[in-house]
Amino acid sequence: MRTRAAVAVEAGKPLEIMDVNLEGPKTGEVLVEIKATGLCHTDDFTLSGADPEGLFPAILGHEGAGVVLEVGEGVTSVAPGDHVIPLYTPECRECEYCLNPKTNLCQAIRSTQGQGLMPDGTSRFSMLDGTPILHYMGCSTFANHTVLPEIAVAKINPDAPFDKVCYIGCGVTTGIGAVINTAKVEIGSRAIVFGLGGIGLNVIQGLRMAGADQIVGVDINDGKSQMARHFGMTDFVNPTDVQGDLVAHLVELTNGGADYTFDATGNVQVMRAALESAHKGWGESIIIGVAPAGAEISTRPFQLVTGRSWRGTAFGGARGRTDVPKIVDWYMEGKIEIDPMITHTMPLEDINKGFDLMHSGESIRSVVVY
Amino acid sequence: MRTRAAVAVEAGKPLEIMDVNLEGPKTGEVLVEIKATGLCHTDDFTLSGADPEGLFPAILGHEGAGVVLEVGEGVTSVAPGDHVIPLYTPECRECEYCLNPKTNLCQAIRSTQGQGLMPDGTSRFSMLDGTPILHYMGCSTFANHTVLPEIAVAKINPDAPFDKVCYIGCGVTTGIGAVINTAKVEIGSRAIVFGLGGIGLNVIQGLRMAGADQIVGVDINDGKSQMARHFGMTDFVNPTDVQGDLVAHLVELTNGGADYTFDATGNVQVMRAALESAHKGWGESIIIGVAPAGAEISTRPFQLVTGRSWRGTAFGGARGRTDVPKIVDWYMEGKIEIDPMITHTMPLEDINKGFDLMHSGESIRSVVVY
Repeated sequence: MRTRAAVAVEAGKPLEIMDVNLEGPKTGEVLVEIKATGLCHTDDFTLSGADPEGLFPAILGHEGAGVVLEVGEGVTSVAPGDHVIPLYTPECRECEYCLNPKTNLCQAIRSTQGQGLMPDGTSRFSMLDGTPILHYMGCSTFANHTVLPEIAVAKINPDAPFDKVCYIGCGVTTGIGAVINTAKVEIGSRAIVFGLGGIGLNVIQGLRMAGADQIVGVDINDGKSQMARHFGMTDFVNPTDVQGDLVAHLVELTNGGADYTFDATGNVQVMRAALESAHKGWGESIIIGVAPAGAEISTRPFQLVTGRSWRGTAFGGARGRTDVPKIVDWYMEGKIEIDPMITHTMPLEDINKGFDLMHSGESIRSVVVY
Repeated sequence: MRTRAAVAVEAGKPLEIMDVNLEGPKTGEVLVEIKATGLCHTDDFTLSGADPEGLFPAILGHEGAGVVLEVGEGVTSVAPGDHVIPLYTPECRECEYCLNPKTNLCQAIRSTQGQGLMPDGTSRFSMLDGTPILHYMGCSTFANHTVLPEIAVAKINPDAPFDKVCYIGCGVTTGIGAVINTAKVEIGSRAIVFGLGGIGLNVIQGLRMAGADQIVGVDINDGKSQMARHFGMTDFVNPTDVQGDLVAHLVELTNGGADYTFDATGNVQVMRAALESAHKGWGESIIIGVAPAGAEISTRPFQLVTGRSWRGTAFGGARGRTDVPKIVDWYMEGKIEIDPMITHTMPLEDINKGFDLMHSGESIRSVVVY
């Protein structure tokens, strides 16, 4: 079949909107009509050429929602008509990782996914001249139709609006999951969130759900404060307004350091500040942000010997097929909010404008609606 | 009273054996006759002058065992005749830290202890000319008699031999506790221990107790291998014999990385290797060793985002008054071994020879018997 897609033809160039060929689903795969997709910083990171693992030409996008149109041989867990969210971290429920309760990093299709291919080692997308186009993070939601492995789709409540719950495919789950799956924040905790963008806001609402007593937000942009307060932030700190050492300020503000700190910036200096503003004896710091290639985190080992833990999270520690449907239900039940974070929507033809809004800091999340 | 002590008169000089004055116990304090004390690298670190927090003149030593001779006003948990192990990490059971199950770092007397003083801000030791001598780590076991806060002594089985169980005052508890209190290693785990000295050997026997399936020991000295195997090591790796990358070798040897890794070297490069040889998705790395002043650990944040945790431990996460008596019982019941690690004993007069043996690598542990 043919479908409409925004193709990343090469690094550093705008996406090109074009018709592409899409082969139908093979064994264990499903064809999904994407109804909406968010634009994430990770897409932008790859498109920019800064991602050393970026491959081109490819169809980017990994934060979508849509409807199953057709299933390949052997597919049993979803059927045509089901509403689904594509999963860049699949959940096979059979590999060593899926069977270990400590991790969500299913490895079943990792090597082919990393090469931009379906599990059989080929791509379903091609240009009209026959040139293959690679998949991206196993999802490629910047196409109106895409093919996904069955283990990489989460079946969700069919009443959920695509243009909102697509955000659960990455940002919402990453932020909320970092709190509830990775940190396992307890009621009454004190927390600090560094970076009040799309991920940071979801960390904040995760902390509110978890019953945190104090939720400190840190951002160099005062303009981020109002929305963060809406989602549950109790204290705002702009590092440029702090006299002296930021860490000392935060430790004092949290009465000795926070029980949990979260980096949602990707800046390795901020990651260090996040660790060091965790409480002596028991504070945990969770890295969520993706750092530039080659960047390293550092600290004195004394920080760890005196009881702080340094950890990280990918996709919020969520097992997609199990956890994503629950988060969709939380949205439908009003337990979490998404709508205020979707600041812009646009048709696929305007997708490059969405990236412009991201760069200018005007948007929290832009969503393409097909 | 007067007692015999090895005094650290100034940094970088040998200890001087001399008679000193010792005041009796004040409120909440106890007078202990030290019967035996181990010589630990931390004593050596302070004596060398490399410890930026080192103070002189002081009576070092923090790994002792002895008998209570006299108790000050208000002391209720121990009485004259009780056998005790001094605790450089006390356990008041009342402070914010003691009441938090996540930490063992009691802060009740931390500020005075750090200044070499008893909780009332004074020292009990002085030279015969009246010059005050500072306490060290709240213990000062390089004196035949010492005064300790009640909250800094663990009452132990009176049948336990002082010249062996003194080692539980630091090394044994630090190593075993890192496994059972901090890492909470599960049966069937794979582990790597970096550094097969006195701490590393105790990590190994802790892993054996915890039921680890694979216990890899890493040391640049082949001579450490035999003793480590005695304590439970299953695989030995000498990094100087490894072709190519040590981390890759260890990851392969442990079938994808270890569930738990332990640094018992204090070398920040080794700490990095320990983290990076932990298993993707769930591996935890525990820093035990004390690094040189100013040294920093580094890694790419990707190591944490893909599921490794970087942690540390002090005194093996043990709450001394609660846990040290249990470890003494384990020794008496044959559940753990200490005797083969006590390679040298000597009278106080020869204590400097004990440090020479440490420097030359001939000893695992030297113990001074009074």
